[in-house]
Amino acid sequence: MPNPIEFWFDFSSPYSYLASEQIEPIAARCGRRVEYKPTLLGVIFRTTGAVPLTELVPPKSRYFAHDFERSARFAGVPYRKPSVFPIPTVNAARALLWLQAQDEAVALRFLHAAFRAYFAQDRNLADAAVLEAVAREAGADPARLQQGMQEPAIKERLKALVDESIARGVFGAPTLFVDGEMFWGNDRLPQVERWLASGPF
Amino acid sequence: MPNPIEFWFDFSSPYSYLASEQIEPIAARCGRRVEYKPTLLGVIFRTTGAVPLTELVPPKSRYFAHDFERSARFAGVPYRKPSVFPIPTVNAARALLWLQAQDEAVALRFLHAAFRAYFAQDRNLADAAVLEAVAREAGADPARLQQGMQEPAIKERLKALVDESIARGVFGAPTLFVDGEMFWGNDRLPQVERWLASGPF
Repeated sequence: MPNPIEFWFDFSSPYSYLASEQIEPIAARCGRRVEYKPTLLGVIFRTTGAVPLTELVPPKSRYFAHDFERSARFAGVPYRKPSVFPIPTVNAARALLWLQAQDEAVALRFLHAAFRAYFAQDRNLADAAVLEAVAREAGADPARLQQGMQEPAIKERLKALVDESIARGVFGAPTLFVDGEMFWGNDRLPQVERWLASGPF
Repeated sequence: MPNPIEFWFDFSSPYSYLASEQIEPIAARCGRRVEYKPTLLGVIFRTTGAVPLTELVPPKSRYFAHDFERSARFAGVPYRKPSVFPIPTVNAARALLWLQAQDEAVALRFLHAAFRAYFAQDRNLADAAVLEAVAREAGADPARLQQGMQEPAIKERLKALVDESIARGVFGAPTLFVDGEMFWGNDRLPQVERWLASGPF
């Protein structure tokens, strides 16, 4: 069984959303599966000193707002600008981790539903009611999820993932690892696909 | 006659080199020509406050060093890490501008020879002897070029281009404009090609 593609992301990262809508067909074509690993960009930016999209100098931030919408159209991915951006994503990440431990299929549906709620439907994923509704849409039991998210093991798991991402050099999202090779950004998916299809280059 | 593709660049920008090796076939497929416009990233970074590749935080700078080499292999473009990086490019830019005013074919050969000298042959383009040799390789008369580069009109032309690039929101290189639409980065060439082939999206 070949290694999975590691997909590190934050639910508040627009280019992570774009990549999440495209990586599974790529993985399927190459006989791999995708392992989604949430991290927290807020912690990463504070730790590494990298500049978040939201704090870029004006000409760059203007360009990226436009580039993001154009990149969504280029990829054929629905997008509607979130009214609130960025948002805290600790709860969404913990919800995903708990669901991944319960039922992978439900967790995967939750991941895509959560990204789409925030980036295509302008629903604030940091709002507990939105998170609950998204969980229900994905087929999860919101009451059990609400409890599960509070488990110390889940909190520890997220903390461990954030630490691991920083230790492995992740400074932004999405960051993908294919057999140890690191690729940053939605725009590296063509390189990811070639690496998967024909090996290191 | 359709508008040319504007290709803004700095001779010291690695991703500009990669894009310069790929843009002309794209332009030819779409019935356009490429208008190469040098600017000076040093001035742009000082003016906009954007962070140059060389001053990124360590995990990001390590990644980019690797990404650049991988991106060159992905594009099939020869690359050899320059011993000196970055370099001042005022003289190379002025040389190009003077040549563009004399003979477009020689100017184009000079542009590619200069990029390749620096990024594929590890020859320091900021060195007057290297610049002279590159000009000779491109079919220019080095003595006349040396004089031409000092003309006040050429110095003014470069200054005007740098000002224009900043006024139009350029914050890094390469930056391409297609019918007014701005694209930043070698990795946006697929979007550039779709825009050229089938119009705005």
